[in-house]
Amino acid sequence: MTAYTDFQNHIAEINDLCCVINLLTWDGRTQMPPGGATTRGNQLATVTRIAQERFTSDETGRLIDAAEAEVASETPDSYRVRAITQAREAYDIARRVPTDLMTAIAELKTISQQTWAEAKAANDFPRFAPYLAKMLDLQRRMADAIGFAEHPYDALLLRYEPGMTASRLRTLFETLKGGLLPLLQHIGARGNAAGGNVAGADFLDRAYPEEAQRAFALEIAGKFGYDLNRGRLDRSAHPFEISFTRNDVRITTRYNRRFMPAAVFGTLHETGHALYEQGVDPALTRSALTTDLLDLYAVGGASYGTHESQSRLWENLVGRSRSFWDLHFPRLREFFPEQLADVSAEEFYRAVNRVRPSLIRVEADELTYNFHIMLRVEIEMALLEGSLKVADLPEAWAAAMQSTLGLTPPDDARGVLQDIHWSSGLFGSFCTYTVGNVMSAQFFAAAKRALPGLEDYLAAGEYAPLLGWLTENIYRHGRAFSPEELLQRATGSGLTVEPYLAYLREKFTDLFP
Amino acid sequence: MTAYTDFQNHIAEINDLCCVINLLTWDGRTQMPPGGATTRGNQLATVTRIAQERFTSDETGRLIDAAEAEVASETPDSYRVRAITQAREAYDIARRVPTDLMTAIAELKTISQQTWAEAKAANDFPRFAPYLAKMLDLQRRMADAIGFAEHPYDALLLRYEPGMTASRLRTLFETLKGGLLPLLQHIGARGNAAGGNVAGADFLDRAYPEEAQRAFALEIAGKFGYDLNRGRLDRSAHPFEISFTRNDVRITTRYNRRFMPAAVFGTLHETGHALYEQGVDPALTRSALTTDLLDLYAVGGASYGTHESQSRLWENLVGRSRSFWDLHFPRLREFFPEQLADVSAEEFYRAVNRVRPSLIRVEADELTYNFHIMLRVEIEMALLEGSLKVADLPEAWAAAMQSTLGLTPPDDARGVLQDIHWSSGLFGSFCTYTVGNVMSAQFFAAAKRALPGLEDYLAAGEYAPLLGWLTENIYRHGRAFSPEELLQRATGSGLTVEPYLAYLREKFTDLFP
Repeated sequence: MTAYTDFQNHIAEINDLCCVINLLTWDGRTQMPPGGATTRGNQLATVTRIAQERFTSDETGRLIDAAEAEVASETPDSYRVRAITQAREAYDIARRVPTDLMTAIAELKTISQQTWAEAKAANDFPRFAPYLAKMLDLQRRMADAIGFAEHPYDALLLRYEPGMTASRLRTLFETLKGGLLPLLQHIGARGNAAGGNVAGADFLDRAYPEEAQRAFALEIAGKFGYDLNRGRLDRSAHPFEISFTRNDVRITTRYNRRFMPAAVFGTLHETGHALYEQGVDPALTRSALTTDLLDLYAVGGASYGTHESQSRLWENLVGRSRSFWDLHFPRLREFFPEQLADVSAEEFYRAVNRVRPSLIRVEADELTYNFHIMLRVEIEMALLEGSLKVADLPEAWAAAMQSTLGLTPPDDARGVLQDIHWSSGLFGSFCTYTVGNVMSAQFFAAAKRALPGLEDYLAAGEYAPLLGWLTENIYRHGRAFSPEELLQRATGSGLTVEPYLAYLREKFTDLFP
Repeated sequence: MTAYTDFQNHIAEINDLCCVINLLTWDGRTQMPPGGATTRGNQLATVTRIAQERFTSDETGRLIDAAEAEVASETPDSYRVRAITQAREAYDIARRVPTDLMTAIAELKTISQQTWAEAKAANDFPRFAPYLAKMLDLQRRMADAIGFAEHPYDALLLRYEPGMTASRLRTLFETLKGGLLPLLQHIGARGNAAGGNVAGADFLDRAYPEEAQRAFALEIAGKFGYDLNRGRLDRSAHPFEISFTRNDVRITTRYNRRFMPAAVFGTLHETGHALYEQGVDPALTRSALTTDLLDLYAVGGASYGTHESQSRLWENLVGRSRSFWDLHFPRLREFFPEQLADVSAEEFYRAVNRVRPSLIRVEADELTYNFHIMLRVEIEMALLEGSLKVADLPEAWAAAMQSTLGLTPPDDARGVLQDIHWSSGLFGSFCTYTVGNVMSAQFFAAAKRALPGLEDYLAAGEYAPLLGWLTENIYRHGRAFSPEELLQRATGSGLTVEPYLAYLREKFTDLFP
């Protein structure tokens, strides 16, 4: 069995380099002094180029060939076979992407992220525009290099959501809109920018000291099962989760002193991602099943959408439920006795589930959130097609925001500059948030079917049964299965919107009869 | 001029990898959750191996050859010529060290540091002993691979203090002891463990909140010229400075709530190192003159001793002077109004200069400090020769401590386990602390000769003239000159103990007439 071992050792080194890329990224966003940005870009570019050269080398091809031959008689579902299949698929695509293109993206990314952060702080889109135009150009070159049948977006989607296409997305969005719009109309939230449909939620905007926000959020993260011996929580401009093998899985959040739910739900969201990474089978450490070999990113999840399904599941389906706040609100009030003295658990539950169109994606409610995504995906498609120019982006953003949610951004910081994704070159990734929403309800419904007492466990704050089922059916497999395979194995069907719409209808018609 | 450019581009990538190694190290000591230690070891080993393979490759040899030919007619003092010379010397040595030995040391280092930290916390030397024994074995193999004429220590010294040997060290120590022992006897400090020779310094041991310690220390660091736009201060078990090019130079300290000078002087010490790195000529960024190619460490200083001379200069010759505390003590008292209400500037100055034998090297006074070093260097030589076994180390340590300073460590945490160096494989580096002390006085005396108003500037808190002289004569050159060359150019003579002894005699006979 030496051919597989040789293959695995080769991939393990590439995984080490991907962990290094992740650390350079994490440090750049959470710790690095501003002066270090340019040479950090050099460092990222060099490590990325080395990882890229190693992975796309002829040697990798030979190692994959030999390993394939060796495991030919094994069951196709074994981790060994899957590791080779994943490496083969990534290798075939990566060989089509020139090294200098990967290097250019890595180099641009650091300085572009830095400029984005400055432009956002200064509310100055033109400062960021040239970097975005350059990034867009590189993304077009990427799509051309990978190749596509129908739409350049399909080539980019391959990197984030294998199996997804522009055409499938359009159908998915249509079904989703068909279900969401009547619900929004029923609630009467659409276009109601003033205060949404929940009166008396002003207490969310009181002054909440950061340290207590952090302490409460971390306490809940720990109850969910986040292991701080293999993790830590930091602050960053945009919350994220990142891992350096399952043994070191870090999350970040941001604090809004005057809007406490941002940090708390942000932390629970990233905790969902972290539980996925910490739950990967230890046997998969440093393997092709914990490495995004195409993006040179150390990650154990099957796809961005699958990953997002877990952040949404823990943040929303668990963390934004009535039983969750019935149980934990008294503890929250211990952290904020004055701010929440006149608030009941039910009032708090209703407040964190108010539905109202808003400007900021990461603060949006469960119902309107998907419209933020559809807006971005349509803009990305138009930018890629060339039917929309970067210079016209703020105007296009404002128009789309007005036509979908009835709002006009007062500035670019609360409009087109709000998200880090485009500065990082993540074109094609936004759709995975909505795909994740859809999947989250499918997985949660399947867990309920499998665990008849689940609602009672959750109401009692016992999260181990749910974490156990998710680990067994999703997390432990790492990247062994495609999103569709995972869904089929865990839920009995492929991607389907109905469980998500059913969940939203049940929850929000109860809240707003 | 393409041959030099090709050489430089090749070295720049190796510098990037060295910066990555530094970041993996910094993160491992300041941020990483404990669970990440093993896979962090994998990552360090992989990057170290790649950097090592690249540097020791035949290609490097060809690039050096070609660059050497191209610059043959340039002045031998030019940075270009010096960069090639440095690379050539490191290359010739590195080619003699097997890659697997470098890898083994890198892999052992992370887990060994982790175990050392646990062993120190638990006061459990036997837990650390097997790692130390393994590290010592690897160091012996290293000395054999590099080769030496007289003593294996000479081969290891090459990595830290080029030009230094076991024999030169013995002579240096002899001269030093000849000057220090009479001074200690004069002061009457030797063997006086109870309270040293300064009464009324108990106020140093009052409760000093950490945040205020940090704020005061950072304020002084800023006055010295430490640029926080290219730096940051963190906490670690053992203070250190580390850089990722001159644009990102980080320091750490540790806080002792009941002994404020530890954090303050620790920070000033690391600030001295940081000023060196931040002051390197920007043209040397990512070159052989900011890369320790032998140790695969991104660093701009000429040697460990030269580097240490700058931490000592800023910590002791500036920061522990009477004029410094005359100026800054009122500000310190604003941070600690209650703790220092009954203390004068002169009393504080005397307290931070008390002389008494102590157990902990990093808390030792200027006079007894060097005995801590000589003890370690003699133990290192004995371990390397094999005349001392790892298992007998605590006993040997206690005996040496008793015979030199008249003290017996009550436990190993305050004895043989106190320093991180051996767990990191830094055999041969301890002597550079004393070499740095000696150099610091030489450089400071030369600066005074060159800047007749220096004492007045310092008394007024104007540090730019001193920083300017040091930058011009030392910092900007990076690794262009050997320690002896730097000393000759900046002070007019090679390494000599007399200025150091003169400084100590003047200061301490004034304090203790």
